Amino acid sequence: MAVQLYCFGESGHSYKAALTLTLCGIDWAPVFVDFFNSETRSKEFRKLNVMGECPVLVEGSLVLSQSGAIQTWAADETGKLGGQTSAQAREVLRWLLWDNHKMSSLAGSQRFLLNFLHEEKRPQEVIRWQAGRLEAALGTLDAALQGREFLVGRDVTLADLACCSYLFYEEPFGFSRADWPAIDRWLDRIAGLRGWAHPYDMMPGSPADRA
Amino acid sequence: MAVQLYCFGESGHSYKAALTLTLCGIDWAPVFVDFFNSETRSKEFRKLNVMGECPVLVEGSLVLSQSGAIQTWAADETGKLGGQTSAQAREVLRWLLWDNHKMSSLAGSQRFLLNFLHEEKRPQEVIRWQAGRLEAALGTLDAALQGREFLVGRDVTLADLACCSYLFYEEPFGFSRADWPAIDRWLDRIAGLRGWAHPYDMMPGSPADRA
Repeated sequence: MAVQLYCFGESGHSYKAALTLTLCGIDWAPVFVDFFNSETRSKEFRKLNVMGECPVLVEGSLVLSQSGAIQTWAADETGKLGGQTSAQAREVLRWLLWDNHKMSSLAGSQRFLLNFLHEEKRPQEVIRWQAGRLEAALGTLDAALQGREFLVGRDVTLADLACCSYLFYEEPFGFSRADWPAIDRWLDRIAGLRGWAHPYDMMPGSPADRA
Repeated sequence: MAVQLYCFGESGHSYKAALTLTLCGIDWAPVFVDFFNSETRSKEFRKLNVMGECPVLVEGSLVLSQSGAIQTWAADETGKLGGQTSAQAREVLRWLLWDNHKMSSLAGSQRFLLNFLHEEKRPQEVIRWQAGRLEAALGTLDAALQGREFLVGRDVTLADLACCSYLFYEEPFGFSRADWPAIDRWLDRIAGLRGWAHPYDMMPGSPADRA
């Protein structure tokens, strides 16, 4: 049976898992989660994941949440994308953690506030505050990519597939590829990998499909 | 030569690494970083860590940042605290990632805004917004600890040492042990471990030492 991934198209965290499963060559199928109607907050969903978040991977008796844990599982299963050496594996983990703390967390939150909340409900001070922090994170990422093809070693790894996730969405959240040349070229490189697809194509069933 | 940990007492992220090194029985020494005078933003420090953050571990030619990566390194080196099985190791990683995304990141930021920023500079809307998110994270943690001694398996792991870190500080940031009985008992259990010490005792040199 194929791996199931509980996810939805707007979730960059889900996209990190979806893209990793695909590029590892793992057979998987999306299970649409109705986030915008509070499915992740339901008791039923909390039984699957006490953290109340997407993505969740299910394969037989294995139930695993947290995009970075799913990514690491896929790399361990296939020997792909986890880095070539133990030193590279440590670097990969370092970027996964940074991404969760400073990059995707902020990008995801900012994109939510600016696109999926009614305009009159948007907390303007929070948006300004997050904008500054997101700018700093993008600066760190762009600096790390100067003169490099990918974040760790010479090949694409989980680190790239984590940090890039929210940057492929078109909805505005304060990121413009033109402002960050090293990030811009790196995103082209990732989008050129065999099997790459846009999050909304990889994880169908969202309101965005009907837009 | 002992492992060096670039850190400062107020940093719960540093404390996760410091506590893990100690409980793994690794010989280490703190190197004080003057965060409050912008040392982590200096060019010199960015050479050590492109992410511009504490903690950073240095052991010979190994330079490693991100508390969760340092914790994982210490567990790999010593065979301690990483979980008893590969399934437990996956659960440990899952909680490390959750902590970085939802727990320590918020607790650290909220504690900074409420204690280390001048009162007139505090962004009240951000503080209210973060308070709601921190409450949700504490709810998730408390629920996960219901009827359990530790987060993963039967023994203390890196997961506990990550999620607990900011909860040992006395400065107010919206967390009261009395409100969360399962967390309260779990913190007592961690503080009772041989080698446990408070962050300000483990990482001296901060303004807090002179208070």
